[in-house]
Amino acid sequence: MKLLSYQSETGPRIGVVVDEHNCVDIAALYKRVKGEDSAELTDMLTLVKSGDAGLDKVHAVRDEMDAHDLIDMASIEFLAPLPLPESIRDFANYELHCQQALAASMKMRASKEADPDKALAEFKASGQYVIPPYWYEEPLYYKCNRFSISAHNQTIHWPHYSNVMDYELELAAIIGKTAKDVKAEDAADYIFGYTIYNDFSARDAQSQEMAFRMGPAKGKDFDNSNAFGPWIVTRDEMPDPYNLHMEVRVNGEVRGSSSSGACQHNFERCIQRVSMGETLRPGEILALGTVGNGAGFESLQFLNSGDVVECDVENIGVLRNTVVKD
Amino acid sequence: MKLLSYQSETGPRIGVVVDEHNCVDIAALYKRVKGEDSAELTDMLTLVKSGDAGLDKVHAVRDEMDAHDLIDMASIEFLAPLPLPESIRDFANYELHCQQALAASMKMRASKEADPDKALAEFKASGQYVIPPYWYEEPLYYKCNRFSISAHNQTIHWPHYSNVMDYELELAAIIGKTAKDVKAEDAADYIFGYTIYNDFSARDAQSQEMAFRMGPAKGKDFDNSNAFGPWIVTRDEMPDPYNLHMEVRVNGEVRGSSSSGACQHNFERCIQRVSMGETLRPGEILALGTVGNGAGFESLQFLNSGDVVECDVENIGVLRNTVVKD
Repeated sequence: MKLLSYQSETGPRIGVVVDEHNCVDIAALYKRVKGEDSAELTDMLTLVKSGDAGLDKVHAVRDEMDAHDLIDMASIEFLAPLPLPESIRDFANYELHCQQALAASMKMRASKEADPDKALAEFKASGQYVIPPYWYEEPLYYKCNRFSISAHNQTIHWPHYSNVMDYELELAAIIGKTAKDVKAEDAADYIFGYTIYNDFSARDAQSQEMAFRMGPAKGKDFDNSNAFGPWIVTRDEMPDPYNLHMEVRVNGEVRGSSSSGACQHNFERCIQRVSMGETLRPGEILALGTVGNGAGFESLQFLNSGDVVECDVENIGVLRNTVVKD
Repeated sequence: MKLLSYQSETGPRIGVVVDEHNCVDIAALYKRVKGEDSAELTDMLTLVKSGDAGLDKVHAVRDEMDAHDLIDMASIEFLAPLPLPESIRDFANYELHCQQALAASMKMRASKEADPDKALAEFKASGQYVIPPYWYEEPLYYKCNRFSISAHNQTIHWPHYSNVMDYELELAAIIGKTAKDVKAEDAADYIFGYTIYNDFSARDAQSQEMAFRMGPAKGKDFDNSNAFGPWIVTRDEMPDPYNLHMEVRVNGEVRGSSSSGACQHNFERCIQRVSMGETLRPGEILALGTVGNGAGFESLQFLNSGDVVECDVENIGVLRNTVVKD
């Protein structure tokens, strides 16, 4: 099942995707069929937190829809599937991306030195720009700003402090149940569903601040930087999340493509890692990391104002955003 | 004014500190005096979000208290002042701490190599363990887990994956108003108040994962790792947050002391930095970073199970926690 959030006159609503063009307002359908409101279907976070109860209600009425219930998805204002996630963690699980991003980062820093060739040689010799052995053993992550969210079709406004804007093509999972000390082999059960994540990044800011060892901050934290969508595919309709073709296009031109399966660590290992001694909650998001060639940074090719970025993931759909430098 | 959160039979309540021993239930006092409930005084996040409206109500009734209203603070179960913050960002603004932490980190990593002396010499030569120039220009931060919260008097349970537990003595500010693109000179007005932060850290996990460049994760993310309290001192009663004596004690013994004023960048500069192109919201927390000698790590002296850690900040109070390895 594909579940989306959209803005109505009365606030966020949940839509169930019916076909390529249409969705239904599931709370309205439930009320029409059952004659009562459903507390679980008021918004996506409530639905996710309700566990099986909410999904059971969706299943109970979805086959009752008729032509009057259909809403043209071209006419709706998409919201991010979870308009305000409980948290977002972004992992770095794709080796090719990490290798290419580290090499690009080294080149960017060296280019700003008085003698770029000498600086590049020194950076290479320093061993700072290689993937450390521990990366191969455990999934590593940083935390994103849960308020800096945007949706399918939304325009991303370039922050004024940046001149180097980039996309990141990622697969994300939404946690559906409270989890603590969960083993990888049991972890799939804690996933509510999957969506597409475009982690827009201000590479100039990121490059400066990551010289210190605390990870990205203003390189990722600006209003609307985290695009999610267009919808969540529930886990039951995603038999193998590690065999999906993923592709990013800019103004229709393919800039990178990969398979979701090239990850060093999968979602189940990420859940195991995070839930060690820590409680994971429904409505938290884990992103698996940028896939190889999933960021312009890897080939030092960045976005221009007005570019349309499409993140296309097999079995999910296309997340489309325009970036504008005001 | 000192404002705390505590657990009552009906849920979280706000207490106003009256003297060394007593507080009052401000919502109950308001109801007794005004004959009606106050929506702003139901819990601390609601109070903070209400802006001046909530504080005006507190001021309107606090002088009406009498002996019957007093609650012995020894009898209450403290909650963190904000039991669930909207977000937490931790900066690294104290040079002495950063220098000593980088040196300690280098020693810890070298000690695990086959030839520690050779490794130490190589790490020194690599230039990885010095503060980069950009740190002196801009305040840098990472984001904490807002769910991993603990309160004054609460026992912190050591996560099972760690053998090296540490404290961090910090001053934190609570954002009181929505802020975007705020200049440092105007930023003080966006601070609701100040509290003490002890950022408990699993140094072994942190050391491993920070070899990659994304900052701390499981080194900081475990249940109850972020201790805040014992209360918030409102901004009007903190004329100079940069001239406070700060001290951390373990089992009564002073382990480190410093002044809050030794920061390279102050809260106002942090607010300027975060709010660049990004909306800061009431109920978000900014911590200024561990003060010099504010972490055991700096002298490679760590905690033992059963240790009582007290973070003492002038003009605020003492945040006390016990750590236990189960």
